[in-house]
Amino acid sequence: MNFCSHCGGPVSRQIPTGDNRPRFVCRHCHTIHYQNPRMVVGTVPEWDGRILLCRRAIAPRVGLWTLPAGYLENGETMMDGARRETREEANVELQALTPFAMFDLPFINQIYLMFRGPLASTEWRPGQESLDVRLFAEEDLPWEELAFVVIRETLECYFRDRSRGGFRLHTGTITPPAQAIQDHLS
Amino acid sequence: MNFCSHCGGPVSRQIPTGDNRPRFVCRHCHTIHYQNPRMVVGTVPEWDGRILLCRRAIAPRVGLWTLPAGYLENGETMMDGARRETREEANVELQALTPFAMFDLPFINQIYLMFRGPLASTEWRPGQESLDVRLFAEEDLPWEELAFVVIRETLECYFRDRSRGGFRLHTGTITPPAQAIQDHLS
Repeated sequence: MNFCSHCGGPVSRQIPTGDNRPRFVCRHCHTIHYQNPRMVVGTVPEWDGRILLCRRAIAPRVGLWTLPAGYLENGETMMDGARRETREEANVELQALTPFAMFDLPFINQIYLMFRGPLASTEWRPGQESLDVRLFAEEDLPWEELAFVVIRETLECYFRDRSRGGFRLHTGTITPPAQAIQDHLS
Repeated sequence: MNFCSHCGGPVSRQIPTGDNRPRFVCRHCHTIHYQNPRMVVGTVPEWDGRILLCRRAIAPRVGLWTLPAGYLENGETMMDGARRETREEANVELQALTPFAMFDLPFINQIYLMFRGPLASTEWRPGQESLDVRLFAEEDLPWEELAFVVIRETLECYFRDRSRGGFRLHTGTITPPAQAIQDHLS
């Protein structure tokens, strides 16, 4: 951030009066520009014991598999956002959704909320952001080709719960994978 | 938003290629400025059957009572943020926290996540944003002097669960109260 989005003046990083952490503050109109974590919402779509995954057509991690998920938009609820992402990436609707996993990713300022629920139809096709969309049984899951640690963690929680006979809400903090640290340092 | 925070150029509202909703886009460097909901984290602090509330010293709703809560900051987990807000507003620590209520407030682009948990000590004092901090038994709760609908909803869920003998995770959407509509129109 270099300029004030309100007046166009230059900003500097300083701790505003009464605050306790540095913010971008406009040197001209004194507007304080707060920056906060973004929320990612998504789904674990189920069908006949199998899980729907999308193969990414966009950066990062093109070609790797993921659950439908993306940034929550202004004006929408978390559940509506999760349904929209599933529609955009796989052109498919879901039946009733239940909050399933909520993860903090403080190293990239993100919160993930993943819902689980059954597909409403068995007709899907890849959206613009997907190369392929497929159902995977647990034993066929492409564990070595998953796009993100948070997706692997969600799927591990899912299959562990299922094998124990009951689903619950999972919470936790994802720490940066070795690859993410490397990306950051390079 | 009037100017690009990256290059200082003018922005216009347009639907970027491959997108489906209007964004602020810089007419000079073409940076797309996404705007997303903010997350508010807070606590229902319990002690001996009573709940700790703070009387607001800052706008909006000065003088009304609320639970400790505020915007999640970059780099922190939701639970750490909830503890920090409780510390800032009431100078008190909490024991183990459990996610209790998660609400969508799409009309103001906010998500609330409220944890519940016992206080770690019985010594508290108002922080800079509070005029007063007190414990309230259910029968003494200032229902008519609560600052926000989402706080009333959280407390109603809490006492309803408690009377039924068990707590669960609550989710739901808060719709704008008459007052909020009036504030918006005036």
